[in-house]
Amino acid sequence: MDTYQHILLAADFSEHGRLVAQKAASLAKLHQARLSIIHIVDNLTIIDSTYGPVIPFETDLNEQLIQASQQRLKSFSETLSIPEERQFLEMGNAKLEIVATAEENQVDLIIVGSHGRHGFSALLGSTASGILNHAQCDVLAVRLKGD
Amino acid sequence: MDTYQHILLAADFSEHGRLVAQKAASLAKLHQARLSIIHIVDNLTIIDSTYGPVIPFETDLNEQLIQASQQRLKSFSETLSIPEERQFLEMGNAKLEIVATAEENQVDLIIVGSHGRHGFSALLGSTASGILNHAQCDVLAVRLKGD
Repeated sequence: MDTYQHILLAADFSEHGRLVAQKAASLAKLHQARLSIIHIVDNLTIIDSTYGPVIPFETDLNEQLIQASQQRLKSFSETLSIPEERQFLEMGNAKLEIVATAEENQVDLIIVGSHGRHGFSALLGSTASGILNHAQCDVLAVRLKGD
Repeated sequence: MDTYQHILLAADFSEHGRLVAQKAASLAKLHQARLSIIHIVDNLTIIDSTYGPVIPFETDLNEQLIQASQQRLKSFSETLSIPEERQFLEMGNAKLEIVATAEENQVDLIIVGSHGRHGFSALLGSTASGILNHAQCDVLAVRLKGD
């Protein structure tokens, strides 16, 4: 039977993200698959009203952001019983980092939350589409309700 | 446990499409879900070198195309043990017809084949993305290899 061996959950820590995570955990159990988790930290840029986006000199800010995200990823992963070696924290373009991590770790299913096209959620929708178009493995887009 | 109750397979009858169908059948079994199938027939238009796309006067052509597709859908569905009342043949825009049929039938997972962004397959990739962006339920994009 076709089942998945290694599932990668693209996680955010929102309330919606928790629902996606619960579904990922259920599916991993049903498929008897390993479950890994990835969270992407955006590069920290500051928008200056004159010069537009600038990289801050204060790189400590980036380090603080990474440390805070690492901590959240760790506690989030614990609720899903995902061991440390299967927790991935990356910086940069979400779509590219998720696809690359999936390939490096022989993931056969990426699970990502998906919003509709309207308003605030268009950005997240486009991440899901981008993953779908670039991934070398299957992609499950979990539709978030009330959107 | 989160499982799917009603899965809709967006089918084409290519060799790739058969692999997607096998995966859909396996997943339906694993989830103990009902499996439905939909195939979309493009509206038949003829490209005239002077006038561009025109709707043919000979509407019999459309009817013949529909009948042939109906026959293929029926025999394809039989290999998957999908009963007639869960076989859907629609004409028109693939993305919209698939999403509408899913909603009308309380589908909670659409399964669709997905190609990469390059060359011939960009069209199919964009159908998968379109479904993902418009569906009110989860969408599994099954990546076709060697693409």
